[in-house]
Amino acid sequence: MASLYHRARVMTCAGSGADPLGLITDGAVLCEGGRVVWVGPDEDADAASRALDVVVAERVDLGGRLLTPGLVDCHTHAVFAGDRSDEFAMRARGAGYLEIAKAGGGIAATLGPTRAATDADLERLTVDRLVAARATGTTTAEVKSGYDLTIAGEQRLLRVIARAGAQAGVAVVPTLLCHVIPPERKADRDVYVRELAEVLVPAVAAGGLATAVDIYCDDGAFTRDETATVLGAARGAGLAVKAHAGQFSDQGAAELCAELGALSVDHVEQVSDAGIAALAAAGTVAVMLPGACVQLRLPPPPVARLRAAGVPLAVASDLNPGSSYSSSLPLQMWMATTHFAMSVEEAWLGVTRVAARALGLSDRGMLAPGARADLVAWNAEHPAAIPYQYGANLVDRVLVA
Amino acid sequence: MASLYHRARVMTCAGSGADPLGLITDGAVLCEGGRVVWVGPDEDADAASRALDVVVAERVDLGGRLLTPGLVDCHTHAVFAGDRSDEFAMRARGAGYLEIAKAGGGIAATLGPTRAATDADLERLTVDRLVAARATGTTTAEVKSGYDLTIAGEQRLLRVIARAGAQAGVAVVPTLLCHVIPPERKADRDVYVRELAEVLVPAVAAGGLATAVDIYCDDGAFTRDETATVLGAARGAGLAVKAHAGQFSDQGAAELCAELGALSVDHVEQVSDAGIAALAAAGTVAVMLPGACVQLRLPPPPVARLRAAGVPLAVASDLNPGSSYSSSLPLQMWMATTHFAMSVEEAWLGVTRVAARALGLSDRGMLAPGARADLVAWNAEHPAAIPYQYGANLVDRVLVA
Repeated sequence: MASLYHRARVMTCAGSGADPLGLITDGAVLCEGGRVVWVGPDEDADAASRALDVVVAERVDLGGRLLTPGLVDCHTHAVFAGDRSDEFAMRARGAGYLEIAKAGGGIAATLGPTRAATDADLERLTVDRLVAARATGTTTAEVKSGYDLTIAGEQRLLRVIARAGAQAGVAVVPTLLCHVIPPERKADRDVYVRELAEVLVPAVAAGGLATAVDIYCDDGAFTRDETATVLGAARGAGLAVKAHAGQFSDQGAAELCAELGALSVDHVEQVSDAGIAALAAAGTVAVMLPGACVQLRLPPPPVARLRAAGVPLAVASDLNPGSSYSSSLPLQMWMATTHFAMSVEEAWLGVTRVAARALGLSDRGMLAPGARADLVAWNAEHPAAIPYQYGANLVDRVLVA
Repeated sequence: MASLYHRARVMTCAGSGADPLGLITDGAVLCEGGRVVWVGPDEDADAASRALDVVVAERVDLGGRLLTPGLVDCHTHAVFAGDRSDEFAMRARGAGYLEIAKAGGGIAATLGPTRAATDADLERLTVDRLVAARATGTTTAEVKSGYDLTIAGEQRLLRVIARAGAQAGVAVVPTLLCHVIPPERKADRDVYVRELAEVLVPAVAAGGLATAVDIYCDDGAFTRDETATVLGAARGAGLAVKAHAGQFSDQGAAELCAELGALSVDHVEQVSDAGIAALAAAGTVAVMLPGACVQLRLPPPPVARLRAAGVPLAVASDLNPGSSYSSSLPLQMWMATTHFAMSVEEAWLGVTRVAARALGLSDRGMLAPGARADLVAWNAEHPAAIPYQYGANLVDRVLVA
């Protein structure tokens, strides 16, 4: 029993050359069993369903609306408890990092409440955030752990993430994030890093709790050597790897990630030409996070240099309580096109096909036979309307597999 | 018959000194006949209603939610037809002003469709935009004409604005905007400016079509002398005045506006110290428009200098098809606090009390006896949550008078 979504302006995100978005003006998408089975011109839909021997049980007339793949958010920190509104207000008043830390702000303000929260509370908070993301078009979201930092606590967060995704009707991809050295382990930092590599990473792999390991390699977080230790262990355990890198300083993480065949490096406001060349050669995705960049008043990443080198560019929300408390990918697309000078086509591919690639997933982020039937219909005709009418929610409906 | 909104965290926006937002943790607001009649601690509400001899017919329990004045958007261009998605896409690809103009973009792309649209179509488009604005908390919106530019057409737009506001359930303040010299009048520019001053402005005043006249004084728009002519005529006709000024270059419009006792000058990315001092002395509001500033990649206005001089700062959406197609004031508050380095308190007052002042209105933008009963309840406790959780719609409910 199949569903036909027709009378649509279909954007497959599976195009190439001069038409990277793969637009079909009078298009249709045929779905069966949670998968796309056919995409093409409306007038060919009936012949296609006969040829595929598919019974069309439901025909949905989209009235000329834009129909796109469900959006893929490849970088979120959606599981946390606590309220950092006060810290936001302090930063807006001009308070610096030290003043905020003295007042109990920064990651410590999330660690305490997250560790203290029950599974049920954390799950509810995460579901609420995923439901909000879905309302603006997100059908797959990577969610990182990273706000507990203990060996047991990080595994608990990964289990919460998986349960929350099932409840929210969003496909989640749980990622183990080695975020920072926890305050209580500063004195035995080396031992903590060894525990990450030798205990936590293998446990996560053995338990099937995550498919990738992420680490924050920057000033105030992990060094390049520590990053190499943890990501090396992850590769050894058969997990994919990625890193937060170059948000404040270039530690050479791009080169290291490329060497390890990382899925992505994220932020990369600061990255050398050698790092960019390495990313391009390895096919590692650079994940642009414009919301956090704007909120922290950082200089934008070198989009033109990344583009010229052929590094694939994704765009994500960075949903987190410190620097970007937002799950709306359409809004990030607006900032990507305006503040980061990306084209509308780059922004769209950045939240669909390239974002899926950054998660190591080839079955979504585009509309093509075999892909998951994750679709979004928009109250718009032109792909540019989504970033252009920023802050509005133009979603007409969201369909998840 | 009165309504009591209680068990609320009331933010009156009528505070002063160390508490400019006027927060009442366990607060209540009593409304009757479309007006606020009392604001205070919840425990005093019953005594207050007895003392005021008011019968409470309805008690609304807000469960600890933040309750604020309805938001006031003091700068929008919500009445227009046509689609400029393509132009947005061109600009994102790096196209410059001339290339866009050659492709039929810029204001010409709005003028043609707006002139050609029927009253009914324009009204529907404007209603849709005002309804979207209301959904994010806006209860009063200034709407400028300015996308017809003929003497008759501008009056038509002002009539459409008034009707659209009544339909959308938003209080609108129609403003005559002398936007640019229309393409067909470039050859007799002086005659056109005289027609504005001697025909259009008096007709608008006589017809009660607007309470204020706005003019765009910048490169490519009106000169300082032309601005003086038009705004002088407006003052002579008993209308309030304001100007778009200093978005691209400082033409001395701030000094001129201050001299004329203008309600506001808007944009002011470029303004001299003398201009700032003049605004402060005149009590003229500077309207910050962060969305347009970010989208056009302009340098931010000199917020610190304006603040230090004591110039009141409002924050508005600049909703328009060219540089800021968004009606969400919460989102503008996020950019005001992050990109413009305003405090959370400044951002809140900028979309309430100071915005009302920029429209010459003293009966809204705060919760105090006599004010319009325009209220917004938020799914939040802390005033900072609204800009902090950017791109989310935290509105619980909106009540208009």
